[in-house]
Amino acid sequence: MSADPSVLGAGTKAASARVLDMINRKRAGRPLPPDDFDQVITDFVAGCIPDYQMSAWLATVACQGLSTEELVALTRAYTRGGGALDLDRLDGPVIDKHSTGGVGDTTTLIVVPVVAACGSPVVKMTGRALGFAGGTLDKLESLRGFRPYLAPEEIVPMTRSVGMVITGQSAELTPGDGATYALRDVTATVESIPLIAASIISKKIAVRAQGLVLDVKTGSGALIPDYDHSVQLTRTMLDLATAFGLSARAVLSDMSQPLGPAVGNALEIRQALAVLRGERTPGLWDLCATLCRLMLQSVDPHLTDDEAMKRIDRVLDDGSAHETFVRWAVAQGADATVLETGQLPQAARRSTVKAAESGWITRIDPRAIGNATLMVGAGRLTHDDSLDYGAGVVLSHRVGDRVDKGDVLAELHYDTGDADGARALVQSAFGFGDKPQAAPVAVHQIFGP
Amino acid sequence: MSADPSVLGAGTKAASARVLDMINRKRAGRPLPPDDFDQVITDFVAGCIPDYQMSAWLATVACQGLSTEELVALTRAYTRGGGALDLDRLDGPVIDKHSTGGVGDTTTLIVVPVVAACGSPVVKMTGRALGFAGGTLDKLESLRGFRPYLAPEEIVPMTRSVGMVITGQSAELTPGDGATYALRDVTATVESIPLIAASIISKKIAVRAQGLVLDVKTGSGALIPDYDHSVQLTRTMLDLATAFGLSARAVLSDMSQPLGPAVGNALEIRQALAVLRGERTPGLWDLCATLCRLMLQSVDPHLTDDEAMKRIDRVLDDGSAHETFVRWAVAQGADATVLETGQLPQAARRSTVKAAESGWITRIDPRAIGNATLMVGAGRLTHDDSLDYGAGVVLSHRVGDRVDKGDVLAELHYDTGDADGARALVQSAFGFGDKPQAAPVAVHQIFGP
Repeated sequence: MSADPSVLGAGTKAASARVLDMINRKRAGRPLPPDDFDQVITDFVAGCIPDYQMSAWLATVACQGLSTEELVALTRAYTRGGGALDLDRLDGPVIDKHSTGGVGDTTTLIVVPVVAACGSPVVKMTGRALGFAGGTLDKLESLRGFRPYLAPEEIVPMTRSVGMVITGQSAELTPGDGATYALRDVTATVESIPLIAASIISKKIAVRAQGLVLDVKTGSGALIPDYDHSVQLTRTMLDLATAFGLSARAVLSDMSQPLGPAVGNALEIRQALAVLRGERTPGLWDLCATLCRLMLQSVDPHLTDDEAMKRIDRVLDDGSAHETFVRWAVAQGADATVLETGQLPQAARRSTVKAAESGWITRIDPRAIGNATLMVGAGRLTHDDSLDYGAGVVLSHRVGDRVDKGDVLAELHYDTGDADGARALVQSAFGFGDKPQAAPVAVHQIFGP
Repeated sequence: MSADPSVLGAGTKAASARVLDMINRKRAGRPLPPDDFDQVITDFVAGCIPDYQMSAWLATVACQGLSTEELVALTRAYTRGGGALDLDRLDGPVIDKHSTGGVGDTTTLIVVPVVAACGSPVVKMTGRALGFAGGTLDKLESLRGFRPYLAPEEIVPMTRSVGMVITGQSAELTPGDGATYALRDVTATVESIPLIAASIISKKIAVRAQGLVLDVKTGSGALIPDYDHSVQLTRTMLDLATAFGLSARAVLSDMSQPLGPAVGNALEIRQALAVLRGERTPGLWDLCATLCRLMLQSVDPHLTDDEAMKRIDRVLDDGSAHETFVRWAVAQGADATVLETGQLPQAARRSTVKAAESGWITRIDPRAIGNATLMVGAGRLTHDDSLDYGAGVVLSHRVGDRVDKGDVLAELHYDTGDADGARALVQSAFGFGDKPQAAPVAVHQIFGP
């Protein structure tokens, strides 16, 4: 409870007065002047606004939305005081991609090395887990020694030497987004179109790559589950990118079931490495292939779909995509032995979830699967939770598969978490029907340049 | 900024998961089960939910509102784990009153002793300042030695011996409201009809007096400025009181200008004592007279308006109202010498604000006046601000008065605050016209039993 001021932390009077005024105005539906966004974000970064006030501000914006003008102002405010990468110093065009995140979505760890192996450098700044969806940085920290945060000045040399970079969003590049991102995660202010769009596009402004591909998820496991709202988020981000002079393409992809079979930090690294060794995992690979193609075309618009796919297949089959990942991960500090031997963190215990009936799988609820991994410690519910890198769920089936009663549906990997609760949640995630069921497509819609 | 978990404080996983789920559901417009309110408030009181999550929850409720069922659940939740006063042990019926608060509104310190002096005991639980409006407890702490918080078991004996009690809301009586009240003040979640109604009525449930009178403000200085919304708040509270078996009356009173001339803690104590000595200050006294009458009638429904006013005038003129205040304040610990000599805290400096033009006063913006007193340290912008009890503003005029250029409009009392800013704000609060202007009525509407 809030009686103890020493726990609450102090702000400054002027900064607090402004944030409180903005909350009241926004709740009353009155427009906010662009400069106020600059000021409130700058003040929060400077520590002049306590977390409990900033979270009320974020919650109010999440409820009331932002006008286009306000959204541009917030996005610019997120980058204020930060730098920009000097990617022009590289010889050729650089590509950036972003996904809104989902369950079993390890696409970044696949498409970045694939495209880099095709000869197009990729610079990807990424974040930690948001809510029940995994975060690329958390996954990468499963690799012993891996340095998740590169200094901005390391990015160009690293890209030049290994063709790719995946690094935690540097607070130096987008200080405002960095400060608010962690707070959104623990205050249920993640699922907001303007807050998502401002956060993502501010990072893209800081990178300012020549090619940009956005992967927006739709379906029950997406941050924005509703199809129309997902389209709205996509268009909001493309418009925002345009307002800042960035040209982008986007994919609306399916998150009505977990994208890949592995859900959990080290489990997803393992999964990504399997694909990079040539395993074309259904669903996961379908989306990765489309993303790789659009990424290549984003800096080479005359490249046909067929030509792009040929290049992609080649680097997967000849081992160069996998080699690129390993070379890059080691360059960022990962222990080479771990990658050679595959000795990633493993949970000590296993427990299988079996089909209680026979039939066709009609549903695998990605939120239930994601929450089950949270229950066994693979994600965070509050800021200070530590992660169990080996914990998670591995699914044996996808929607549309036929199973018999007693078949294994999933395997739970855990150490100390609430395994019984997680098992029940995984069990409840599956739905069955007595008729064959078409598997959902991985890619719903492509938004061209 | 929020990167340091030790500053943020930890919650428990289950409690955090529930509050986050409630935020998402409420933002999406889905109904919340009554039990969830019990749980979230109980968890917050127990320290299982960090402030930054609770403030996001409050901000979301403030934006999205509550259904009647949800409002009853929240109100009940506020009282859960608390006790109730055993006022039945007193010989006669006890009266309770509540004001939504405003600028220069020192009615509690007047009407409670007046009604008590008329022979009807009053038990009033009260709070600290919310936003730019003053709080009775803060004002009373100007009295050296005064104990603002009585233990619940002290209330009945104190009422029996001196006829009245004004005490800080005991966390033991409404633990949930106590825990959220302070946080609302510093997160701009004060101005919300359901949050106001639940907070006020939960306190009334804990007191459970036989007579209850609510004073709801309307106009630019009210927590809810809009007239229709003020009526809505009044009806919401009356309905909520009825749902819990309490019969209440209400006054809709004017807060389009400061109610009394004094704004600031010790300044308002001084003002109240002047009225109790028989000074019928325009505006302030008009409202107090109506409230006193309704309070007397609330436990004696056959009492006519004239009879009630005769009793009220008598205790004001014969000194017994003033005597009741002094006897009570000393019983609650106040230094008798301070009350006898009037040696309340005084600010060291004075500065006058003068009329820049001649004309009739058309406007004295109560928010500007309230914010000016905040700037000189009479109120809080964050939890840990300390108060300057002597600081504030004393107005020389009311709306409708005729002034000449150079006439004193107000006097600023200050020590170390931003006096220049406050002066400018006070100056800007006044508006002038070239035609006579009718003074606004003090009481707009009365809601009977």
